[in-house]
Amino acid sequence: MSIENYIRDIQDFPKPGIGFKDITPLLANPEATKECLDLLIKGLGDKKIDKVVGVESRGFFFGTLLAEKLKAGFVPVRKPNKLPFETISATYALEYGTDTLEIHTDAIQKGDKVLIHDDVLATGGTVKAVCELVERLGGEIVQCNFIMELAFLNGKDKIKQFEVYAPLKY
Amino acid sequence: MSIENYIRDIQDFPKPGIGFKDITPLLANPEATKECLDLLIKGLGDKKIDKVVGVESRGFFFGTLLAEKLKAGFVPVRKPNKLPFETISATYALEYGTDTLEIHTDAIQKGDKVLIHDDVLATGGTVKAVCELVERLGGEIVQCNFIMELAFLNGKDKIKQFEVYAPLKY
Repeated sequence: MSIENYIRDIQDFPKPGIGFKDITPLLANPEATKECLDLLIKGLGDKKIDKVVGVESRGFFFGTLLAEKLKAGFVPVRKPNKLPFETISATYALEYGTDTLEIHTDAIQKGDKVLIHDDVLATGGTVKAVCELVERLGGEIVQCNFIMELAFLNGKDKIKQFEVYAPLKY
Repeated sequence: MSIENYIRDIQDFPKPGIGFKDITPLLANPEATKECLDLLIKGLGDKKIDKVVGVESRGFFFGTLLAEKLKAGFVPVRKPNKLPFETISATYALEYGTDTLEIHTDAIQKGDKVLIHDDVLATGGTVKAVCELVERLGGEIVQCNFIMELAFLNGKDKIKQFEVYAPLKY
């Protein structure tokens, strides 16, 4: 089974000129989801993980599955004003304007081994902000993984100091 | 282990006078997450499920875990303009104003046995709209489950025709 067959290309979404990689066919198929999860676990090797950090919203899907498989805690990083407890935030540049992400201050303990997960590595702006949040709380980033990497956007350059893994590359 | 110990009360969130049930301590603890998942699976009995529908965003956490455990497909129901393929939508009343949810038209096949999951059953407006979307696509709703039910809000009354299960009641 190739999980690539379960990624659907949607042209001009969310805006004209953008090609969107839709993972809902992957999620709808339990065998394909299992295969993708197995690949992500394999790519991590035997590294110990205390917390899996998933990025709102599409990073929540495999983020929770990874945490369960690794017997690690799951930590959501969310858009502003969604997390109810005390938070810290990071703001990062988009093509037009900025975006902000938040994490609970009690979500990561100092020295926690952290796996960061999102569905797609694109320009890397989002995951760089998430890495910053995790490190500010004293977490040690073991790997950033993704279902797929849009290699032509060079997102890896923004998180050069961290190990990056993605089973699919475009 | 009582999963209730991992639900944190936050007063005046998201607005004054509202008491918010924060599930992030539950997610952060792998044993508590497993216990909660086991309770949800037990509450389902031996019913066969083809698709688990999770409601954005907090329904995604245990929604994906339930789907994996049940070897079912996972289907996200999302806020407007988040799903990239062809969708149908349902609009429902809130205390002030309305809200809208969308589902992909290819997410449910006619006759699919469907489990709907969200973290909290409150007034029931959201889950009622999700039930409507699933039935419009020909799905057969087997159960709506939640981590917890705020029983004093009588949300069950809005989805009387369906089986409802929640391990925690407030």
